[in-house]
Formats: sequence, structure tokens, C-alpha cells
Amino acid sequence: MPILVMKFGGTSVADLDRIRNAARKVKREVDAGYDVAVVVSAMSGKTNELVGWVREASNPPGSDSGGLYDAREYDAVVASGEQVTSGLMSLVLQEMGVPARSWQGWQIPLRTNNAHGAARIDSIGTEALHQKFSEGLHAVIAGFQGIGPDGRIATLGRGGSDTTAVALAAALGAERCDIYTDVDGVYTTDPRIEKRARKLDRIAYEEMLELASLGAKVLMTRSVELALRYKTRLMVRSSFSDDEGTLVCDEDEIMESKIVSGVAFSRDEAKITLLAVADRPGVAAAIFGPLAEAGVVVDMIVQNISEEGRTDMTFSLPVDDVSRARKALDAAAAAGEIAWREMVVDDAVAKVSVVGIGMRSHAGVAQRMFRALASEGVNIKVITTSEIKVSVLVDRKYMELAVQALHAAFELDVA
Amino acid sequence: MPILVMKFGGTSVADLDRIRNAARKVKREVDAGYDVAVVVSAMSGKTNELVGWVREASNPPGSDSGGLYDAREYDAVVASGEQVTSGLMSLVLQEMGVPARSWQGWQIPLRTNNAHGAARIDSIGTEALHQKFSEGLHAVIAGFQGIGPDGRIATLGRGGSDTTAVALAAALGAERCDIYTDVDGVYTTDPRIEKRARKLDRIAYEEMLELASLGAKVLMTRSVELALRYKTRLMVRSSFSDDEGTLVCDEDEIMESKIVSGVAFSRDEAKITLLAVADRPGVAAAIFGPLAEAGVVVDMIVQNISEEGRTDMTFSLPVDDVSRARKALDAAAAAGEIAWREMVVDDAVAKVSVVGIGMRSHAGVAQRMFRALASEGVNIKVITTSEIKVSVLVDRKYMELAVQALHAAFELDVA
Repeated sequence: MPILVMKFGGTSVADLDRIRNAARKVKREVDAGYDVAVVVSAMSGKTNELVGWVREASNPPGSDSGGLYDAREYDAVVASGEQVTSGLMSLVLQEMGVPARSWQGWQIPLRTNNAHGAARIDSIGTEALHQKFSEGLHAVIAGFQGIGPDGRIATLGRGGSDTTAVALAAALGAERCDIYTDVDGVYTTDPRIEKRARKLDRIAYEEMLELASLGAKVLMTRSVELALRYKTRLMVRSSFSDDEGTLVCDEDEIMESKIVSGVAFSRDEAKITLLAVADRPGVAAAIFGPLAEAGVVVDMIVQNISEEGRTDMTFSLPVDDVSRARKALDAAAAAGEIAWREMVVDDAVAKVSVVGIGMRSHAGVAQRMFRALASEGVNIKVITTSEIKVSVLVDRKYMELAVQALHAAFELDVA
Repeated sequence: MPILVMKFGGTSVADLDRIRNAARKVKREVDAGYDVAVVVSAMSGKTNELVGWVREASNPPGSDSGGLYDAREYDAVVASGEQVTSGLMSLVLQEMGVPARSWQGWQIPLRTNNAHGAARIDSIGTEALHQKFSEGLHAVIAGFQGIGPDGRIATLGRGGSDTTAVALAAALGAERCDIYTDVDGVYTTDPRIEKRARKLDRIAYEEMLELASLGAKVLMTRSVELALRYKTRLMVRSSFSDDEGTLVCDEDEIMESKIVSGVAFSRDEAKITLLAVADRPGVAAAIFGPLAEAGVVVDMIVQNISEEGRTDMTFSLPVDDVSRARKALDAAAAAGEIAWREMVVDDAVAKVSVVGIGMRSHAGVAQRMFRALASEGVNIKVITTSEIKVSVLVDRKYMELAVQALHAAFELDVA
């Protein structure tokens, strides 16, 4: 029988009523003839409670431990959240007449590397799962966790339950992996900003990757990457309706792709420009090395030649990282590693991007974008492009206007 | 190095302050040179919350499942409580400078039989624990759980964390197993009833067994049986003081044992008498067979010959079981399996017992007991005796008086 993986996030299993609601969706797929592997998150709020206890245990008032703790114990504590949901979901399914059992990561086994707290999946044993499927027993799998080479529970870090679901779907050769969440699919842009935003029926992996990394929080980048690598068909859909969601799939499965599929944005950006930096080999490393060491996540980087032997270097970063970045750069300057004439910080910018597989074969996307923004009087501060994306930085106060202008310019409100 | 097992119950690990308090006791033993295996319960209230969810999952409003559920899923859900405490205790110990790690039942492994929800321990692997002790790493063990032959989590039922601790102490060859709880030891009787009740320094396993089964709720019968079988020295002591508690040990370790060590009682008893039952072989089976099938826990049984070919049969039972017992007996009578002239039910009795290893070698204990009760005007309704115990049923309203009279008669207030 074909296998379907169904993943339910924390808000979809927040209490027993919601678990029952999710279980009804599982039953429907079982009745339709699938062997179902359900992947569950912790009930919403539980993970935060457990993480809070771990912090409190490791950092009592007056402690000088600096917030460090043993990630293996963090994993033992936090993984209990999904364990509880897996048992409850199995009981609810049984009560509905669906034969099911829970699986913890170590029982499958889902083997990870040793990076406790943010482990990566090494392998998934599917023999026991297939055996139980053949006995008519559906699977409810505690997401977010596996067993490390040390024989201890290892959690997968943020988005770990999505990753579990996609990796399982790939390992089991599932027909599809349905990610149930509190939104009903992937939209052309955020409906709170552009009310004519439209739900997409299908979107290519590469587009979804760009959207995920650009701040559309529907799916974590990591699980989309995994889906792309194994060509696992993902569907993002709502726990709270019966509508079809958005299928994330290979571009070959998308008949008539538009030039642009969506407009993404990221509100809390900042921009730092170093004016008149000495333009010599190694200068980029001298700037971005210290920033990386300080944990600053640099996004866009633009370098312009300004005058003889000098260059202006501009980069964008999350607004929360500005003071850390400034400190790291000043330290590098004090150490004589770099020098510049002036540092200009703009902490009131936002990033707006258009994304689409279709732009590969269509010139003029950037130009159409710039014209649309210009006609609304939105000034562009930085531009970067990739094969399927054009991103610009604009003043934060123009972000909504920019999103709406681009949504209209690329006719995203029309199916 | 000598090994010490320390077990902390739910109220002793109810929150992080209490876990820290418990951890300080562990550190003290570590500093004294022990390799310590800490066994922890779930934070108090957690198990009830988890059990409540299991019930709700299996029995939604309007369900006809009759309260049945898959005990394997119950185990997966409920075992998470101890898992959380084991991780938190390890983190707190680490923060105090005590190297420690958590162990789940399946990691040790603590192997059980397949009776999910009330499993029995089959074996405990100690190799990995000893290995980690030799590396200086103390152990924090999630109590109440192991791994069944099916590779799934199995919980040990009520008192399971005590059982885990005692079994571990036996398997590890521990010097002692300290059971930390919210009372500071075993008393000659309940101090709420007799304010001159005195904490015992030592008590023999057999005495503790009688007291445990008679309703003194300090230790579960099962863990005392285990301690007796393996001659594991148990100490019952308080989490909230630094006092020594009560050592439960072999009678050889008790120098001058008194004739009677304690007075136990059980308040909610009932007594049923069947008058003029036909006195023939098999009549006891004909009465107690149907009761056992109905799940009635019969305690004391007394048979008196009354008249030619007839006998009176009296037995005691928990007061909550009376209506079930009556129904079972009436059904057996209707089926012609037994007959009696009259059924007399007394549902207002209590059981009072004196317990002591010393009474083996001293005649006259029963007589001294009866005289003490008679002098207070307490009428005895049923008497049973064992090698180290004499129990009587009295009217419930005289229970406190009987306990006080016996406590004085056997001079239990004097060390």
C-alpha cells in the first residue's frame, strides 16, 4: 500500500480536542488506503516549559555558569514533549478504530550525529516500520528526535519535526509528506499585508527554499532542502480546514509556471556601510571574518569601487545584530586589521524580494521590479540577485507599499 | 568505591528548588566518597496530569470503550514524567560541580516483562553504569520504568520508583538504598493518632512488610519484599531534614528488639458473616471463589462451628467492596452453589494490629493485647494471628482508642 507521512505541529496538537481533530484527518487517509506515518510535535507551550526548566536548572540565581548546560540532558528533558503527544495520538487513533502505535526516535531507530540539541539525521531504519505496516499497524512518530552514537536521545533543533517528517517520507518512499500547520498553504505574499494575496496550488522546491529563507515562516529551510534532495513531495496544509494546501514539488510537476511566484519580505533588517575601505585582496575576509566569529548573520553584501584604491562595502544584517557587529568591526579596526573612513549604520530598512523559477527564462524581471517601485516613489538602497530571486533593501516604512506594488506588478492576484 | 542508591519521590522533586535541595543531599554523599545512583520520580502532580490525558484520549465524552486503553501507550506517555526529572536533576548536579548523567530505563537497560503498566523487573544490566562510575560519573535514573521484551517502554505500576531503587541497589551491590520521602522515618504508629508515637531507628524487613501491607504508607510492600529477598539495607528518611531515618534491615542487625515494634491500623474495613453455612468440604472454595472472581480483596477469614453440620463463616474486606461481595454471594446462592441462613454485614469496623519480630519468642502477646483493649472497653469482633502479628477487628469508632491503648500497653513510647 502507498505510504503517506502526515506531520502535525504544536498548535495542531495543542490539546486533546485538537489531537482528535488531527486524528480524524489521519483516519480519512487510512480509509483512503494509505499506510500512514504520523509525525507529531509537542503540545504547543510544552517545549517552552521544558526549555524554561532546563535553563532554570542550569542557571540558578547567582550562578556564574554563563547559561551553559549539558545538551544531552537538554535533549532528555525536551524530547519528552513529543513522546507524550505520540502516545496520546496513538490512543486517540485506537479509540477511533485505527490500529496505531507510537514510536520514539530510538525505537525506529532514527540515528543522528552527536551534535546534541541540533543534531543531524544520519540514517533511518525502516525495517521495523515496514513490518508493522504490513501487520496493519499505522505509526505515530515522536518528531524532533533520534538516538545519537552515544546511545542517548538527540534532538534535531528548530524545525526538527518537519525535518523528521521529510526524512521519514524519503526513507519510507512515501507518496507524499503532508505538513499540517495553522496556515492553509503558501501564499503569493503575506495576506496581512496584501489582501489580494492568493494561495498557490504548487510551488517548486527552489522557490520554497528562497521563500523560507526570506522569512516566510511556513516551512524551515532545512526540511525543504531535504525534500529537494530526495524529491519528496511536500504538501503544506491546514489542520483546521479540509482544503488542499500547497504542493511543494519538482518544477517539472508545475505546468505553467509564472515568472514570479511570490513576494517575500523581512522587516527587521539593518544595513552597514563602510566607506572608503582599502581595496586590497583579503579585505572582505578581514571584514566578514570577525563578524562571523561574533555570530553576526550577514545576508546581502555589495561592494562598490569608490575612488582610487578605495572601496565602499555595504552589507545587511538582522537589526538585533547591529551592536554586536559594530563592536566586532571596531575591535578589528583597533587591532589594525582593517581601516575605513566612515561607518554608516541604517537600522530602519527592510528586505523585499520577488521569487520565481520562471525568471530564469525571462529577462527584464529586475527592471520590471525597479520600475514598479519607482512609480510608487520607493527608493532602492541595495540590490542583490540570484538565479530565481531579486532582492532589494528599502526604507522600512515603505515595506508594505513595496510588497503591494510588486504583487500587483507581477499580477500575483490572478491565478 | 562503595555505591549508594538515593531515591527521591515526587514531593521531593516537585519543583526546581526541591530538586536543588535533593541535589545537595546527593552532593554530600558524593563528597563522603560514594558512587551515587539517584533514582527520581516525576515531579509531583505530573503523573496525575499525564494519566488524566491518557484517560481523556481513550475515553472521549460519549465513548463506549469502557475505560480500556493500550497500556503500552499509557507507558510511553506516563514515563515521560521521570525522564524530565532525570534530566533536570543531572543538570542541577552538574551546576553544583557533581559530574552526573541521566539514564532512562531502556539505556541502562532495566529489562521488564511484558505486563505494561504494571511490569515486573526481569534483569538490570549494570555494566554501563559501573563503567561510568569508574569514569567518575554519577547516575541519575528515571524511576518507575524499563524496557519490555517488545522493545517498548514499560512502567512498573504503583510504587515503581521505590522498586527501581531497591532493585538497582541489589544489582549494583550498593551499601544502602536511601528512600527520601516527606516523612522522616517509620514510626511506632501514626503520630496523628498517638502523639507519643516514636520514630524507630531500625526495623526488620518482616516487620516493615507487615506494616506496609497493614496500611502504613511509607513504603510499598513490593519494594520491601525485594529488599528482603536481596538483603538490601533500606533507609527511609526525610528530604526536608538532615536527620537519620529508619533503617529497614535484617533482624540480625537489630540488637535488642522489642516484643512489639509498632501498631498498625486500617480504618475502612467491613465484616461479612454468613450464619449457618452447610459445613462440608469445599464450602470455603464455594464462598471465596466467586468473591475472588468479582475482584473482592478478602483479608481476615474466621470459621466457627456453630451447630450440627453448620458453620458460621466471617471475613473482612475493604468497605468499598461490600456491595460487590454481596452481589457475588447472592449470585452463587441463586445458582445453588452455597446456602446460608443469614448474611450479617457490618460496614463500620477497623483493623488494628500489633507487629513485632520479638513476639516469636514471647508467648502472651495476644493476651496482653486483649487485656489492654478490654480495659478500655473495646470489644473485639474478629482475631487473626501470624508469626509476627496479631490483628483484631473493632468498631471503627474505637479505632483511635485501641491504637492508643496498645501503644501504651507495649510501651512503644519508650525507646
